[in-house]
Amino acid sequence: MFRTLLTCTSSKEGDIIDITPQVETAIAASGIRTGLVHLFVQHSTAALTTIEFEPGVLADLNRALSVLAPDDADYAHNTRWGDGNGRSHVRAALVGPSLTVPMENGRLLCGTWQQIVLLELDVNAGRKRSIVCTVNGA
Amino acid sequence: MFRTLLTCTSSKEGDIIDITPQVETAIAASGIRTGLVHLFVQHSTAALTTIEFEPGVLADLNRALSVLAPDDADYAHNTRWGDGNGRSHVRAALVGPSLTVPMENGRLLCGTWQQIVLLELDVNAGRKRSIVCTVNGA
Amino acid sequence: MFRTLLTCTSSKEGDIIDITPQVETAIAASGIRTGLVHLFVQHSTAALTTIEFEPGVLADLNRALSVLAPDDADYAHNTRWGDGNGRSHVRAALVGPSLTVPMENGRLLCGTWQQIVLLELDVNAGRKRSIVCTVNGA
Repeated sequence: MFRTLLTCTSSKEGDIIDITPQVETAIAASGIRTGLVHLFVQHSTAALTTIEFEPGVLADLNRALSVLAPDDADYAHNTRWGDGNGRSHVRAALVGPSLTVPMENGRLLCGTWQQIVLLELDVNAGRKRSIVCTVNGA
Repeated sequence: MFRTLLTCTSSKEGDIIDITPQVETAIAASGIRTGLVHLFVQHSTAALTTIEFEPGVLADLNRALSVLAPDDADYAHNTRWGDGNGRSHVRAALVGPSLTVPMENGRLLCGTWQQIVLLELDVNAGRKRSIVCTVNGA
Repeated sequence: MFRTLLTCTSSKEGDIIDITPQVETAIAASGIRTGLVHLFVQHSTAALTTIEFEPGVLADLNRALSVLAPDDADYAHNTRWGDGNGRSHVRAALVGPSLTVPMENGRLLCGTWQQIVLLELDVNAGRKRSIVCTVNGA
């Protein structure tokens, strides 16, 4: 088992960051060729998934997140805590913090149009985000 | 590998149960210090995710689930089976039954505001829920 | 660790294919009795989850996906690329490509009403879909 911490910094809500290159670097550092890579984002207002990393799709995904948890709804979290990021928590819980991807011969077994992304969902900008990366295999 | 079954009992639809303490107890029992904890809820009307365990956010999450699968829509499942939990199945399938969380030195590597929760999505109350907990590592 | 590639062919958008039997065949072939099965769909317009495999629920799930990413919305992806599957990408990213299920004595530890399914989300019909299946355990 090999473990490392990946980090990235977002600039604003709705940022979608392609972390595939960082995951590939971690795999190379692990020396593990075949197995599974597990990723876990250690925040309650960010999430992980895969998507075609193309600006049109990314905008479409953000719009869908706005349907699910509208920007201008009344959030009980906001009323209680006043930090304005109720929608961020809801979206993050629905997409999820965890992702496992298979690898072989030192390469991710993703599809051609399938990149690993971090979704920055917080309304507060410029956050440093940590992702625990664990590689298992041989 | 260590495996145990976690259980909890909900009282009503929309209950969100913090199972983090139970997961921590399982890790301690496993004797494994560093690795991955996998959780799987064995039901089609419950789901697992992470969230800040704060009543406002939990209410906001439930409202988002109602947008996705409204309480009063016509469900084909209900028409066919008459058990009234069509929305429960839909919500559970979208959130998902499975979650993997990293651990180190016997502790979960969650963020400060990030708890592991079971979502009770069934309209029928008072269910006992089983979660298979598997700890891998050394 | 045992690895194999599962494949299935969809006929149209909205197809939900029960891949549980194929996963069980893979477990039998692995010779592994107790552990975890990981599944990863190598496409950005398909997804994996669990659901009760009952036609009513499947129709209800498809309707929920249409709420999230309506069929007739304007997708930036479609405008840029003209392939008409913007909604497919959005839905796939929200449901997710990855699923891990525990097994014991050579059997999946799913609930009685809980099958493993592939969601065909692409608007273009008749796709062959690949799922990397990895079995870990002893």
